[in-house]
Amino acid sequence: MAISMYQASIPQFTKMLTNLSKILKKGEEFASAKGLDSKVLVGGQIAPDMFPLTKQVQIACDLVKNGMARIAGVEPPTFEDNEITFADLQERIAKTITFALSLKPEQINGTEAKEIQFSIKEWSFEFVGEQYLLTWITPNFYFHITTAYDILRHQGVEIGKMDYLGS
Amino acid sequence: MAISMYQASIPQFTKMLTNLSKILKKGEEFASAKGLDSKVLVGGQIAPDMFPLTKQVQIACDLVKNGMARIAGVEPPTFEDNEITFADLQERIAKTITFALSLKPEQINGTEAKEIQFSIKEWSFEFVGEQYLLTWITPNFYFHITTAYDILRHQGVEIGKMDYLGS
Repeated sequence: MAISMYQASIPQFTKMLTNLSKILKKGEEFASAKGLDSKVLVGGQIAPDMFPLTKQVQIACDLVKNGMARIAGVEPPTFEDNEITFADLQERIAKTITFALSLKPEQINGTEAKEIQFSIKEWSFEFVGEQYLLTWITPNFYFHITTAYDILRHQGVEIGKMDYLGS
Repeated sequence: MAISMYQASIPQFTKMLTNLSKILKKGEEFASAKGLDSKVLVGGQIAPDMFPLTKQVQIACDLVKNGMARIAGVEPPTFEDNEITFADLQERIAKTITFALSLKPEQINGTEAKEIQFSIKEWSFEFVGEQYLLTWITPNFYFHITTAYDILRHQGVEIGKMDYLGS
């Protein structure tokens, strides 16, 4: 008995993306109720040299889309990173969930020892599948979901821990 | 081939706590270099009704300490939640790592279907082991580590994503 690669990833990642979608909806409703330009919230940051909400959502999506595609050995869809509204972000999350759920357990399971190599700018990374999932995708994914939450909380949006965790 | 309950928890959680320790050290050094009262950073918040840095660190530790003790079926050590300085927080993290590493793989493995029940205030929770680890401990743990990071970033501490992820 143990945890499969699929069970350790897709169900929880898609649940968290659904929670993120609901959190963003509350952000949009907050902006509307307060008569704020929603671009202020969408561009919100924790620090001037940290990514804004849009980029936090984009990266959270890409960790699932590109990360799970690498594990499955398939080509992920390409997104243009041109989201500027809450509606745009909702669409990106929905497309990411659709792609993630299109991956079958048999494409993900058994990849614990699969070699994964990729580069980001000048940095090269090498992992095996289990390590890539547990020490790269997972902490990065939760980082960007939490920071998106923190940005909206910082702006005054009335969300709580149960919105983050989901039911 | 699959991921063991131990492998999905203790090594990565203790690594992240070590990263948190280093991030807090950079926070303390920042306060010292700027001539700031370090209590300002330790009490830093993302929103007035969110927990300060101290509590974020306490909860991150408790998720590992209490969560993994529940999974292993042992009594966790009790901490008094009386940390007020960076040194206090470092001590709590160190004690948490020591406890986590005292749990043997054979105490954690095979608990995927183990029934876990607990209460927080008026809420009761019921999980099986795998679900408790993947949908409760893990997202909560990363939430509090990331929010601790975001609080320090918001205060201007020079930390980056690689400090969060560790090497």
